[in-house]
Amino acid sequence: MYDYDVLVIGSGPGGQKAAIAAAKLGRRVAIVDRRDMMGGVCINTGTIPSKTLREAVLYLTGLSQREMYGQSYRVKDDITVGDLTTRTQHVISREVDVIRSQLSRNHVSILTGTAAFIDPHTLSITSAAGIDGRHVTAEKVIIATGTRPARPETVDFDGRTVVDSDQILNLDKLPGSMVVVGAGVIGIEYASMFAALGTKVTVVERRDRMLDFCDLEIVEALKYHLRDLAVTFRFRESVVSVERHNGGTLTLLESGKKIPADTVMYSAGRQGLTDGLGLDKAGLAADNRGRIKVGSDFRTEVDHIYAVGDVIGFPALAATSMEQGRLAAYSACGEEVHAMRAELMPIGIYTIPEISYVGKTEDELTEGSVPFEVGIARYRELARGQIVGDSYGMLKLLVSPDDRKLLGVHVFGTGATEIVHIGQTLMGCGGTIDYLVDSVFNYPTLSESYKVAALDAMNKMRAVARFSG
Amino acid sequence: MYDYDVLVIGSGPGGQKAAIAAAKLGRRVAIVDRRDMMGGVCINTGTIPSKTLREAVLYLTGLSQREMYGQSYRVKDDITVGDLTTRTQHVISREVDVIRSQLSRNHVSILTGTAAFIDPHTLSITSAAGIDGRHVTAEKVIIATGTRPARPETVDFDGRTVVDSDQILNLDKLPGSMVVVGAGVIGIEYASMFAALGTKVTVVERRDRMLDFCDLEIVEALKYHLRDLAVTFRFRESVVSVERHNGGTLTLLESGKKIPADTVMYSAGRQGLTDGLGLDKAGLAADNRGRIKVGSDFRTEVDHIYAVGDVIGFPALAATSMEQGRLAAYSACGEEVHAMRAELMPIGIYTIPEISYVGKTEDELTEGSVPFEVGIARYRELARGQIVGDSYGMLKLLVSPDDRKLLGVHVFGTGATEIVHIGQTLMGCGGTIDYLVDSVFNYPTLSESYKVAALDAMNKMRAVARFSG
Repeated sequence: MYDYDVLVIGSGPGGQKAAIAAAKLGRRVAIVDRRDMMGGVCINTGTIPSKTLREAVLYLTGLSQREMYGQSYRVKDDITVGDLTTRTQHVISREVDVIRSQLSRNHVSILTGTAAFIDPHTLSITSAAGIDGRHVTAEKVIIATGTRPARPETVDFDGRTVVDSDQILNLDKLPGSMVVVGAGVIGIEYASMFAALGTKVTVVERRDRMLDFCDLEIVEALKYHLRDLAVTFRFRESVVSVERHNGGTLTLLESGKKIPADTVMYSAGRQGLTDGLGLDKAGLAADNRGRIKVGSDFRTEVDHIYAVGDVIGFPALAATSMEQGRLAAYSACGEEVHAMRAELMPIGIYTIPEISYVGKTEDELTEGSVPFEVGIARYRELARGQIVGDSYGMLKLLVSPDDRKLLGVHVFGTGATEIVHIGQTLMGCGGTIDYLVDSVFNYPTLSESYKVAALDAMNKMRAVARFSG
Repeated sequence: MYDYDVLVIGSGPGGQKAAIAAAKLGRRVAIVDRRDMMGGVCINTGTIPSKTLREAVLYLTGLSQREMYGQSYRVKDDITVGDLTTRTQHVISREVDVIRSQLSRNHVSILTGTAAFIDPHTLSITSAAGIDGRHVTAEKVIIATGTRPARPETVDFDGRTVVDSDQILNLDKLPGSMVVVGAGVIGIEYASMFAALGTKVTVVERRDRMLDFCDLEIVEALKYHLRDLAVTFRFRESVVSVERHNGGTLTLLESGKKIPADTVMYSAGRQGLTDGLGLDKAGLAADNRGRIKVGSDFRTEVDHIYAVGDVIGFPALAATSMEQGRLAAYSACGEEVHAMRAELMPIGIYTIPEISYVGKTEDELTEGSVPFEVGIARYRELARGQIVGDSYGMLKLLVSPDDRKLLGVHVFGTGATEIVHIGQTLMGCGGTIDYLVDSVFNYPTLSESYKVAALDAMNKMRAVARFSG
């Protein structure tokens, strides 16, 4: 008999939900993580600190209040790193408590240390001090080890002026200028926060666009707003090296450009945390970015081993990882599970302004030759948009002219990650935009944008029908 | 031939939407209002100023930040009326612009003045200067005149220290103490705002509870929080008179109590604005509170005359009035209209913390012998709740154990008036809580509370099923 029915490696969002789901199904479950990493990157250096920082930035800069009080308005003239991170430690420790208590309430054993395969069913748990610990066996194993920032040797990281995205919260003062290498989700989220704080930000990205899974119009609106906050974009530019100099940094690009800045944040990719995992002992291998390949139920090539979360790649968002964890646990326990349809998975990007969507983009629909009509509502036309001082926010509905169902919902601006769920629910329950047209929304809210956008789409479809009758 | 197909009296939310709906149906439409009241009480002294004030209060007091930065934290130590109302005028003038432009874009004639019936199809429009203006005729008339605060003679209103709810924004300084007479929506909204600003508020209410259409648990949570902000409640107390004295006011209660305060806001009821309307000339009459009785399609006892909005009574919310306006216009134009089912109409109350709900309350279901299970999520268990510093917020789902559909959705706390629409959409589209259980929500959001609450309800229903198998 194995020590555990299910062993989960890593306590981030994916691992947590896997462990709890298996425990709720009556299995004997253990979860392994380092003492200082309970909750994973999500809680400790990633999602939670960055979203807490974002809230502090929005508040302390008074950014959304400037429309009211003038462009130079800010609550605090001299915002320090201390101001920004006061709340971060508080939220992190609360969240770690919440996770520990959830795990223990569900009788999940917490094994402290680093796990490595000895054979396909046996793992060694090594403590932080490097002492080889006990061996544990499990019938099923779920790998949820996450990722770490990729750190090329040509970049002179010191954790203070040249940092990766897990170190950015350790800055000792707010930089006057900053280079962000990599325009992925993490890079752009931090670029927008520092831009809001008044840092002159230059974003360097190898490809010719960014966030290419998002709606193009919305990404362009984001770029416009970031430029308005003095962000410079350098697309199709590769970094040759990042040097540290007395009092600053210098980023050298392949095109010959040199960009001086107080600080560089290097966020070009993350590497799956699989190095020390002894995958070969389990009959598995990771790709060159440390990632593990899985099938549709998150099973690896070895039947009793699963992998979920960032270690399997895109989209590498906490919400998605949680769901993967739950689904893997159900599969590992041989239970039937209802999964949300893939096209209903929301994407939330906590830039300033924030972006969220569910369903297809215009480009995807056009490529697939799926006709659609667009319905748009702008926050500035809504009383609530005026009240919160958001004049740029918008909701875009992509509607099928055949059955008036939603094909996609794209939101840009205040509350985007929340209100996208109204459209998601409509899509999930098979409703049409007729429902939105006839709906009554609280006044004043941003949710009213659904009615406005639905009416817009309806009017456009009527105009088409008039000529193609 | 009549001058207009449809004449709308009053340009508040109900009147606007009625006029625009009729115009979009190709009718010749006019709307009558006083020059300084475009948009009605909603825009000028009611909903919009109070919600803008609320936003300023939340921001300037840093109320939601106190959990992070300590109880005495506030952005601005000495908040003045000027600080609070800076944005109000800006938002009001923007909204008036939006309404004027919507009306003119739809070719609705704006007649400036006060309307009164001459006969059932003819109205005189009197200008502000009192000059009898022209007579206009219309085939259909929609009355959307709204209400004014009731002002009993025993209360010594002066518009500065003893005010009604339309005058509260004219205060010249923030009162140290305040009596709010009437614990209706308006009274409690202002009571909570002034309490947040540090004013010692006493609420006097004739009945033994308040907001009795809301979920009792949530109203009790609101009372608890207001008491925590030093609000005193005096239920089952009637006001005999309100006196002005040098440097303050004195409110005398029937029970013999005397309450001194810097300011009194009298908000015990509103009176339908029907006095000068010459209803008798149209064959109509108002009740003793100035209200007009209507049937299910908002038609009055006179076939071609409709009434919508606050002038017809509960719930007297802008969102509801808009929908009534639209429905009345469709009926007046003989068009078929799809109305949202009455049980899906949301109620939003902008107290601090805010309240919103859709569907039934526990009391209503119990009275109707409809069994239900309760699913609860508390914001403090959500990462987003921690991040925004809302430890008291909650979502409560009332679920039918028979078919697992939602019977009611009750939200208390940050974003309540927005996220209630997720539940409303689920109810409107006939979804069950299984959808919510399987759903993936953006992380971190307050919307996640739906999944947590749905799981809670599901677990409780399973526990019941185990014993009643």
